[in-house]
Formats: sequence, structure tokens, C-alpha cells
Amino acid sequence: MQQSVKVGLIGFGTVGSGTAKILLEQQQLLSARAQIPIELVAICDKDITSDRGFPVPPHLLTTNIEDIFNNPDISIVIELIGGLEPAKSFILEAVNRGKHVVTANKALLATYGPEIFGAAAENNVEIGFEASVGGGIPVIKSVKEGLVANNIHTVMGIMNGTANYILSRMTEEGLPFDQILKDAQAHGYAEADSTYDIEGIDTAHKLAILANLAFGASTTLNDVDIEGISRLSPIDMAFAKELGYHIKLLAIGRAVDDEIELRVHPTMVPVSHLLAQVDGAYNAFYFIGDSVGKVLLYGMGAGQMPTGSAVVGDVVDIARNIRMNAANRVPCLGRPFQDLAALKKRPMEALTGRYYFRFAAVDQPGVLARISGVLAEYSISIASVVQKGRGTEESVPIVMLTHEAREENVQKALGKIDNLDIVRDNTVVIRIEDLKSLEESA
Amino acid sequence: MQQSVKVGLIGFGTVGSGTAKILLEQQQLLSARAQIPIELVAICDKDITSDRGFPVPPHLLTTNIEDIFNNPDISIVIELIGGLEPAKSFILEAVNRGKHVVTANKALLATYGPEIFGAAAENNVEIGFEASVGGGIPVIKSVKEGLVANNIHTVMGIMNGTANYILSRMTEEGLPFDQILKDAQAHGYAEADSTYDIEGIDTAHKLAILANLAFGASTTLNDVDIEGISRLSPIDMAFAKELGYHIKLLAIGRAVDDEIELRVHPTMVPVSHLLAQVDGAYNAFYFIGDSVGKVLLYGMGAGQMPTGSAVVGDVVDIARNIRMNAANRVPCLGRPFQDLAALKKRPMEALTGRYYFRFAAVDQPGVLARISGVLAEYSISIASVVQKGRGTEESVPIVMLTHEAREENVQKALGKIDNLDIVRDNTVVIRIEDLKSLEESA
Repeated sequence: MQQSVKVGLIGFGTVGSGTAKILLEQQQLLSARAQIPIELVAICDKDITSDRGFPVPPHLLTTNIEDIFNNPDISIVIELIGGLEPAKSFILEAVNRGKHVVTANKALLATYGPEIFGAAAENNVEIGFEASVGGGIPVIKSVKEGLVANNIHTVMGIMNGTANYILSRMTEEGLPFDQILKDAQAHGYAEADSTYDIEGIDTAHKLAILANLAFGASTTLNDVDIEGISRLSPIDMAFAKELGYHIKLLAIGRAVDDEIELRVHPTMVPVSHLLAQVDGAYNAFYFIGDSVGKVLLYGMGAGQMPTGSAVVGDVVDIARNIRMNAANRVPCLGRPFQDLAALKKRPMEALTGRYYFRFAAVDQPGVLARISGVLAEYSISIASVVQKGRGTEESVPIVMLTHEAREENVQKALGKIDNLDIVRDNTVVIRIEDLKSLEESA
Repeated sequence: MQQSVKVGLIGFGTVGSGTAKILLEQQQLLSARAQIPIELVAICDKDITSDRGFPVPPHLLTTNIEDIFNNPDISIVIELIGGLEPAKSFILEAVNRGKHVVTANKALLATYGPEIFGAAAENNVEIGFEASVGGGIPVIKSVKEGLVANNIHTVMGIMNGTANYILSRMTEEGLPFDQILKDAQAHGYAEADSTYDIEGIDTAHKLAILANLAFGASTTLNDVDIEGISRLSPIDMAFAKELGYHIKLLAIGRAVDDEIELRVHPTMVPVSHLLAQVDGAYNAFYFIGDSVGKVLLYGMGAGQMPTGSAVVGDVVDIARNIRMNAANRVPCLGRPFQDLAALKKRPMEALTGRYYFRFAAVDQPGVLARISGVLAEYSISIASVVQKGRGTEESVPIVMLTHEAREENVQKALGKIDNLDIVRDNTVVIRIEDLKSLEESA
């Protein structure tokens, strides 16, 4: 039996600092709960001189990554530098040297997951990645362990705090997207480059990771259909409210027949549904299993300390396994790596549902007739139309709600409408999900 | 290494049947995920002839409990008969024979937890009790493992589905308590004897169990201050709504300075808070940790299949440990049994807060003066008073809201008021929790 568990940390930025703070300040608590001493012995970063706001023993700090790889006493390597490279090489290097890895790197796992989990399986080491999804909310552990008795049919959720913060403020304050984004950036609620957050990429990373666990199918970012929120306007929020919905950037993964549906897009959610009540920077993960029914997990999906909480949770989990000589007691993806099936993706075109369209059309007679003509051509039946005066000089917004329609037809119709000479911009599309049908089909 | 994990089930009622159904029908899935065959080999019940709605191999069924205890191949015993005895003896017998135990028995654990967990520690076997709290919601695992890096300061929640179902319907429909209870019983949403549910005992069981894990202090039912919901009336719901609150039967556990506050009572929760939005038979568990911040877990807190999901989750957890020869990899209570501290209970009298009172007073001049006189005597300052005509012949309801007051004074004042000759019944008390202060003090 090992006498202690020694940990090396790569990346001493925001989350790295939070993680180090917990490991150093709570060492006694963590060691007692793990029943084996857990010791942070090395921190590697390009910047080891800036003050992180808490005391760090100087001998832990290094700029030389080899100090971590070459230290045979280190059994867990924490990777918190983010991005694809050099993070990927660092993780594979650690794995190949027989070290367990804990990471918060969702982009990496959603892109190179199969390679990384495969290498870990070969070397019988663990990859802890609770922190990659939902910050400190124990999402990964719940799927792999707590809900292990279930066939999970549906994974849904609000998985990006920045996007949800912006949408919440747009709903409450009626201000434009750009203004709230800038304000959020100025106050540190959004990163300077928020592209991944607002365009749904970050949400899709998390959905891809969860799909591996929930559906047992090898899934990466490329398998997810993605639409972001940057084209939404206060008009859309106002209409949604009138109709009894909140607009959320929803991730939806569903097993339908033999296929898996995977999509991220702005969605109208009934205000009475718990997901509509998740406001601000909070996240919510919603699972439906055949035995457990609906389960929702809510909390801060990002941030220094919540994410640090998840990283350290994984460290303790692995330390408990090291103490018991039980590495990979639970396989990284909840089942043996070789049991993972190939994904049978349900194409986006197979969807049916109700839609909200906002057309940017010129203000002249006959416009409505031409647009609705195209919709009729593709059997898209209109439930209601509203044309409001608030437009630009160039165009006025025309809002339509459809009855149940086929996505395939919607895409074709919009392709045609957006090319009409009377239409000035691509149509804004928001899918309306009453969720009841999703919940019941599961 | 063991070749397979054999399981014996005691109790073939509602949850027992759900559990057996999952173990039999999902055997392949469970064994693949656990990486060791999991086999249900015996089911013991007084009634082994009734149809449970799914096929059960007859050779599994027995009425003789010794068939389980004496079978050396059985390494996990599931206890689902409920109640204190003979459940306690059965569990201790299994533990003493070196068998792991999985149970949903919250009453037993909240009463004899220290004895049972102590015996398990001595015999190095595990007690899985995820199913005792929150049905299929992975509450126990989240506290012991997912949030392991945290000092948890606050545990709150809606922990009883029957009570919440009744309160939700009273709020929505404005009907009296008795009528909804009867209707719920007629439709199987509430048990024939619902005393534990409506008087807060069941909620207190769960809070006591969670307090062990969250605060690391040995806690039983006796440590919890309990008030039920059976005296609430539609008037109370109507007033709450007007004030912007929903009434919930809330369990509240808090670490305050060196003491632990443990209470269950009807509580006014601001409608904007997620806990106020938890409706019907659903439960929600709300934790605040020093790193993770707020985390909420939501789902069905009871029922055949959700509870079965949790029981089987524990079976797989223990099977994974058996495969790895890693029994008690995570101690039952999240830390070694001997590390559990004695509880330093914060007395209910130490509370301060705002209160809703409904007095049942006779309809005559001077009544208000006498009641408010007593309140003044105990420095309880009144924020507002409403007297509405809807009363009985005997009395009219007088509703008061207080400013911040001390519980100790409230108890003394009400003791005096309820003995006044002008007062016909004990005063209904509902505590008003804005939750923000609870959340911020944590």
C-alpha cells in the first residue's frame, strides 16, 4: 500500500489557483476523508511569481514540466492549462508514465476523448474529468455511479453560465445582446473572447462528454448540431414571455429508437418548467432514466472555487482507489472503454417540432404573402403571425409561430426565404420545446 | 478475486419488487458496468405467492430468512422491509456474518445509525443507504464523494413528497388540508397512515441522516426540532402567496459557529427561489459548501422504481468494491466511523427570524390589544396585521407578520397567548426564510 498520494499540478491560472488553495488549505480534511495523506508536491506554470492571494510554499513552484513527469512519487497529475495543445501532449505523457490524470479540459475531451481514454485504459490509469462538466456539480459521478441502474434516455440542460447569464438579463432587462455581453465582459462575468460560450461550442463540448457516459456511444464535438445565441434580440425575449416561455440555450441529447439526437440551440422553455427558472450564471443538468425518472442537478457550472471543488473531488476519488489498489474501479466512461459503441447519430433533419421564426423583411406590400407562400410549399403550417413596427430602416421584423413541422422542411424553406430579395438578413429560428413530449417519450 | 456477486433480498413489497425487477431485467447491463456478474439469488418475504407483475424464477423465493443468512455465497443483503424491528436484527445479523447491507430504511438509520454503522465498521462491511434519502436522487453519494472537497455549512430541502404534494395542491387549488390528504390517499399518492409524512418525522429522518454526512457529527432523530403541516389551512397559503411566498415543509441543517442547527417546519420560501418551484411529489436537496457554493439536486424522492434505482446503485457500488477487494473504500459516513464527533446542537431557542402567526381568537373588542400586548411584552415587533372575516362561529383568524424576532421570545409569548381565554386554539406558526441570509452566512 502506498503511504501517501502525491499530486502535481500543471497550470496555475484561475482554476489552478483555486485547486491549489483547496489542496493546501484543506489538506487535513481531505487526507482524513480519503484515509491516506494527499500532498500537493509540485505546481508548474510559466508564471510562478504572481501573487495568487494565498501562501504557496516556494519549493512547490516550477516552470519545468519535467519536474512533474520525472518525479516518480507523483501519482496524480492535474492538467488545468486548457486548450488542445500542449494540454493533450501533457496528458498523454502523464498517462504513458502510469500517472493518473485529473482535468477540467472539456474542449480536449470532446475532441480527443477516444484517444485519451483509450490511452488511459491501456495504461490502467484513470482520467478524472468531473470538472469538465458543470463545475462543482457532481454530474459525471452521478451518471457513472448514482444512476448506474438506469438506461438514460435523455440528457438535457443549461450547460453554459455565460450564455445563461446573458439570456437571463436580456429577459429581465430587455436590453440588446451586445450591450449585456460588453457589460458582462467589463465585470468579469464573461471572458474577453466569449465565442465558445455564446455560439454554443462550450455547451456542445459538455453534451458530447455526457453523451459518452449516458448513451454508451463514442461521441465528439463533431456529432453535435450547434446554434448560438448571438443573433437573438430583446424582441425575441418579449415574444417568448408573452407566449409563456423563457429562451434558454439548451443542450438536448436523446436516445430515439436506435439513434442518438444531439443538439444545442436557443430554445423556448415553458416558464413553469424548472429549467426555465435557472437564472444567471447557474447551470442545470437534467437526466431522465428508465427507473429513476427525472433528476435535475443545479449549481455554478464554472468559476475558480466550484471548478476547484470538482478537481479536488476527483483527486480524492483517485486517492481512495490508490489506497485500495483499485485503479479504474469505475471505468472512466462508466463501462469498459472497449464496450463503447459507435454513435448512430440521428440527423437534425429527422426532428419535428414547433418553431419561432423572426424574418427581417423589407416593409412593402406582398412580403408576407411571399414568405408564407414558401412555407406553404414545404407544408409548414403557420399558427400565428405578428408584425411589429420596431424595425430598422432596412427591414421590419415579422414573427411567426408554426404548428408541428419537420426540421428538414424548415431548413429547406428558410434556405429559400433567406435568399428572397425582400429579406435582408438570415431568419432567426428558435425551437419551441414543451419538454413534456421529450419527457414522456423517454 | 470473487467470480460473481450474489445478492439476497429481504422484503418483497413495493420497493423490494422494483429492486428485484431491475436486478433481474437489467442483469446484463449491471454486470457489464460493474465488470463482475451481479446475481440476485434469493428473495425472502412472508408473501411469496402474489404476482408482482414480472416473472420471478420460483427457486429464488423463500419465506425462511435463514436461507439468506446461511448462504455463504451471498455477499450483499438488501433489507427492504422497513420499520425498526425485525429490520434492525436482520441487518445486524447480516453484518455480523460479514455480509454487506443495502437498505432504504431511514427510520432505522435515523434511530439506530450509530449502532449499525459501528457494527459495520467493526466487521469491515458496507452499509449502502442511498435509497434512504431522496429516492433515486444521488444525494448520499454526492455528499460523501462529489462534494468531498467541501466543508458543507448548510443542508436544506424538501425531503418528503407526500407533504410537498399536499402543500402544492393547497397552494394551487385553495382546498383544505384534510380534503387533499384524503384524495391523495384514495389515489395512492399518500399512505393510509401518513403521520410520519405530514408531521415532519420522515423529513427529520432524512435530515438526521444527512447531518451525519454533511457535518461529521453523530446525529439521530431526537436531535431534530420538528413541526408538521397538518394544521395549515388554505388561508395560510393565500396569505403566503400575497406576500410573495410559497409554504414548504423545509428541512434546515446549518453549521453556526460551533453548533449545528437542525429543524423541520413549515416555511415561507420566496417564490423566486428554486425551492419554491419544487412542486408535487418532487424532492429537492440543497447544499452549500465553502468551495462549490450552492448545489441543488432534484427528483422523485420516493416510489417503487426511483427507490429501486438507488438500491441497485448501491449494489453496483459495493459489487465494484468486491471486485477490487476494496470494501469500505469510502467509509459509510464519508469519514472513518471513529472520527464522527458528538453533536453540539444549537437550541431552537437560539434562532432569530421573521414569523407568520395565525391566531384563532374570539370575535370581540379588545382581542387584538391583548394579543399584541403579550407580543410587546416579549419584544416581538409586529410588521402587519390582517383580520379577515372568514372564521368559524367560535373564532376568527387574525394573521400577523413580525419583524425579526427571537425564537425564545416567540415560544414564551405564544405559550401565554394560547392560554388566553379569548384564544380558541393553538396559534399556527410559519417561519419566514428569505434564504438569502442563510445562504450568505454559509
